[in-house]
Amino acid sequence: MFQNFDVISERDAVAGRVERLRGWLADAGFDGMVIPRADAHQGETVAPHDARLAWATGFTGSAGTAIILAERAALCIDGRYTIQAREQTPPEVYEYVAVMETRPEEWLAGAVSEGAVIGFDPWLFTTAAVERLEAALKRKGAELRPLGENPVDLLWEDQPPAPSGAARIHSATLAGRDSAAKRTEVAEALKEDDAAATVLTQPDSIAWLLNIRGSDIARVPVVHAFAVIHASGDVDLVANPEKFSGEVREHLGNAVSLHPVDGFGAVLDKLSGTVRLDRDTCPVWVVKRVEAAGAKVAWGRDPCALPKARKTSAELDGMRAAHRRDGAAFARFLHWLDRALDTGEKLDEIMVAEKLEAFRRDTGALLDLSFDTISAAGEHAALPHYRVNRQSNRAIDSGQHGEVYLVDSGAQYADGTTDITRTLAAGPVDPEIRRRATLVLKGMIAISLARWPKGVAGAHLDALARIALWQQGLDFDHGTGHGVGAHLDVHEGPQNLSRRGTVPLEPGMILSNEPGFYKEGHYGIRIENLVIVTGPEVPPGGEREMMGFETLTLAPIDRKLIDSRLLTDAERFWLDSYHARVFTEIAPLVDQPVADWLEDACAPL
Amino acid sequence: MFQNFDVISERDAVAGRVERLRGWLADAGFDGMVIPRADAHQGETVAPHDARLAWATGFTGSAGTAIILAERAALCIDGRYTIQAREQTPPEVYEYVAVMETRPEEWLAGAVSEGAVIGFDPWLFTTAAVERLEAALKRKGAELRPLGENPVDLLWEDQPPAPSGAARIHSATLAGRDSAAKRTEVAEALKEDDAAATVLTQPDSIAWLLNIRGSDIARVPVVHAFAVIHASGDVDLVANPEKFSGEVREHLGNAVSLHPVDGFGAVLDKLSGTVRLDRDTCPVWVVKRVEAAGAKVAWGRDPCALPKARKTSAELDGMRAAHRRDGAAFARFLHWLDRALDTGEKLDEIMVAEKLEAFRRDTGALLDLSFDTISAAGEHAALPHYRVNRQSNRAIDSGQHGEVYLVDSGAQYADGTTDITRTLAAGPVDPEIRRRATLVLKGMIAISLARWPKGVAGAHLDALARIALWQQGLDFDHGTGHGVGAHLDVHEGPQNLSRRGTVPLEPGMILSNEPGFYKEGHYGIRIENLVIVTGPEVPPGGEREMMGFETLTLAPIDRKLIDSRLLTDAERFWLDSYHARVFTEIAPLVDQPVADWLEDACAPL
Repeated sequence: MFQNFDVISERDAVAGRVERLRGWLADAGFDGMVIPRADAHQGETVAPHDARLAWATGFTGSAGTAIILAERAALCIDGRYTIQAREQTPPEVYEYVAVMETRPEEWLAGAVSEGAVIGFDPWLFTTAAVERLEAALKRKGAELRPLGENPVDLLWEDQPPAPSGAARIHSATLAGRDSAAKRTEVAEALKEDDAAATVLTQPDSIAWLLNIRGSDIARVPVVHAFAVIHASGDVDLVANPEKFSGEVREHLGNAVSLHPVDGFGAVLDKLSGTVRLDRDTCPVWVVKRVEAAGAKVAWGRDPCALPKARKTSAELDGMRAAHRRDGAAFARFLHWLDRALDTGEKLDEIMVAEKLEAFRRDTGALLDLSFDTISAAGEHAALPHYRVNRQSNRAIDSGQHGEVYLVDSGAQYADGTTDITRTLAAGPVDPEIRRRATLVLKGMIAISLARWPKGVAGAHLDALARIALWQQGLDFDHGTGHGVGAHLDVHEGPQNLSRRGTVPLEPGMILSNEPGFYKEGHYGIRIENLVIVTGPEVPPGGEREMMGFETLTLAPIDRKLIDSRLLTDAERFWLDSYHARVFTEIAPLVDQPVADWLEDACAPL
Repeated sequence: MFQNFDVISERDAVAGRVERLRGWLADAGFDGMVIPRADAHQGETVAPHDARLAWATGFTGSAGTAIILAERAALCIDGRYTIQAREQTPPEVYEYVAVMETRPEEWLAGAVSEGAVIGFDPWLFTTAAVERLEAALKRKGAELRPLGENPVDLLWEDQPPAPSGAARIHSATLAGRDSAAKRTEVAEALKEDDAAATVLTQPDSIAWLLNIRGSDIARVPVVHAFAVIHASGDVDLVANPEKFSGEVREHLGNAVSLHPVDGFGAVLDKLSGTVRLDRDTCPVWVVKRVEAAGAKVAWGRDPCALPKARKTSAELDGMRAAHRRDGAAFARFLHWLDRALDTGEKLDEIMVAEKLEAFRRDTGALLDLSFDTISAAGEHAALPHYRVNRQSNRAIDSGQHGEVYLVDSGAQYADGTTDITRTLAAGPVDPEIRRRATLVLKGMIAISLARWPKGVAGAHLDALARIALWQQGLDFDHGTGHGVGAHLDVHEGPQNLSRRGTVPLEPGMILSNEPGFYKEGHYGIRIENLVIVTGPEVPPGGEREMMGFETLTLAPIDRKLIDSRLLTDAERFWLDSYHARVFTEIAPLVDQPVADWLEDACAPL
């Protein structure tokens, strides 16, 4: 199994660790420090080596900031982690701070005294983050100062080593372009911008650029590395050389020079002219070193971000194949689950998640999950980011009262990444739940059917997914969708479907379409398909080019959670057509009993 | 009549004027100058005194920029003015530049030589505009330099004097708050921001703040003035003193000191501390003078903008009363027009516009139009900003072929401002036009029915008005709606319904809801109601507070242009309910024949 469900609790060790940190900080002349949930690559997942926030606080969630001062300490988290933080982090050591109400820098500014010196690890902070902290401290007459060494690394006795997973070749056949062509494109963009080079610090950009994949962290098939790409198209790649076999080195070729991690500074020292850096992702350490080299820093987006988001037709074909494969596994899973629920088999959240992983593994192509499966029954489904463990695990009640069961999961295959959510009725369905699930479905269909002209971004479309809920005084507290990589990160920028999504949608971008509704303590609903941006083309009878979405995900939507009286003719037509397509594409890939079950599940409403 | 339809053509005088400008510029050491369509208040309408762009180019449209160099000159305009510019501006003097393709600063950068000195009038340019020009010129090694005197004013022999219309009191009863309370609110906002003062340069902000109205320019009941409001709440008002009668001066009270226009500099010279200025509206002249006074400029929005946009309940009641009054006049107009079209009476665009103004005048309450009526038949309706004159005027063809007639108009009453568009079928209706008009109607209904939570802005709702068109490969090239003032400017910020509308919508804001569709050279459709933002309140059966819209405008929508098969049940229900309300509210205000006609026009679909 890729996923494990162990309860990790280091709660009892936290107080001692914080005391040792305080001692170190005092000796080194600091009045406190800030510890983010980040590594030098600012990704969503960190390696065990980089789980410094968890070491210092016990909290293992995917976002948060600790601030340790001499007398006080705070763990700053967002609303989805309130409960988890209380379980993992001792309140006698840390105050819990809700970032929606109080930003970390605000808490810090309120807690420090004039003249205080607060430390931070310049590898783990971006310029944007440092500027926020600096501005807040300055108002109080306090100072933010880089730490020469990170005391967590010094005091963490059994800190796991930095990951050194093997890199592998991602073929030009799967990528649709060879790395040389990509490097030329990025180099041209740098030249047009009068930039001599840019420093790439995001592993998915580097994986995309060099047509490589890796195994440094769970769920995300990237190589932890840094890279400098020059306007010549040459690349300095900075990473543990042990990750690269002779075959991979040959694939990288002469234009890519490999440097060990401790040679990064020397690579940066050679930079001159204008160097483009990304303010939101580049570590301050890199920025300062580039400045010290005498180069001129120009802020700009990582030049790989947009080309990576615009998938090639080979990548799109790969994603389609991955979704057919995944759809077959998911159909087998749904068939099994439906029967198990019907026959009153005893099921719990972990069993179901394990079964789903097993069906995916049966494809023979599963390289990893794309994220830990969210397997959530009843009130757990109301937590959009619920992660089941042996302690939280609960039975699914398909008995007299019934409840919903929500499963949000995905797979990494060599040809593509999947991410699907379905919500199922276990036992009888409360009419309120059915009505609200139908409103969520209306939002998902509205996005599926949307067309729009050039220039429109996610921020402009997000309301289409919500208006049916809004009309009824309901809403959900997450974006409608995120970008998705092609056998890369399941959460990829810059495209997204949310009010913060200001990047225009372009053909070939892949996004999730996942509206939901959550009733705290009771139930949760989410329906998620992945979609490809298509077009532009003039619709029949129309006059202007429009873009639209092609749906990738192939799995039936539970009809027990649909109140068909709430659907318009167009919505019902979409659903029936979608189900017909699911049956046509998936039935040939599964055994007869599953195909028979699928036929019923995909029948017209 | 407020509106006149005269053809203004000074085309023949343009070449001579440009030659004289070139001579003056050369003598003064300038290689060229930029002339905007602006006065010092950056409003949409300028007084005849400020029509410098028209004097120098012949072009009388409401947006444009002229650039005059020694050998070349350009008139930079947007797409809606392409035809008008060709008619009014001689091509042997000016190149026409489409700003959608080439920004004025781009044309300028391409046309100037290294070392060139380009002049601009610092009263007519904002910092934002100057920075764009400066950056472009700098790249070419050229310089932007303020003109001590505007040569247009020096050379324009019969330049009309600056307006000196009388100011009048806008009662606290109509405004819902007295001026002292508003000044205190704005002063508090300045104090919170550590600002000592702000300079108001937008006449509608000053009119709002001081509860006054004026008559300096047509259509917009403001006083041309500048004002400084201090953190104490005291105001220095800078305007021609002749505009203020003893009664108005008494209304202004002791906290408002009146200064003549040539005393503005002295008022600014006394400023110290931090002075908040609006980067997008404040003239550079003011910015430089404030800096020269030793004060620190802090960029920030005009602090009157948001409070002005959030109407008081008295203002909303006034707007409702104005819309009932206007709705009765409009019903009489529609009844007359419908009968005239039915009986084949010979009608043209000017006649209809005059008739509409006459019906509004019959209310006895009409103070002005809120803008020149757009009275557009057939292919003229495809021009969203069409302004009929004696030359363009054409008959409305209600004969065998039929066509659409579009009328977009509004009134200024003491208690409110109206703005309504209706498109009517004259004669038989082409099915394509009816289908597309129905798609436009669907968009208008989607906005009318929308609900949304706190924080949502126009940019997030705009797509609701377009999605029915987008699905069919159609769109329109203007925002869905603009903010509207309460007996103030019919186009008011900061709120709007468009992809550029990033200010969250708040209760009491008034907007237009006016999707359209235009087929160039053939026909145009637009349906416009004004709406008030309502709420927040929890809809029945819902869980969260939502905002919504209350429709102000009361006039039937032409059923001959509705294909009811394209409407959902919810859309049809909205339309029938709206029409029932129009009949209930307007029928008691009109004579029996009009009421009878209205009953038919408002019958359920």
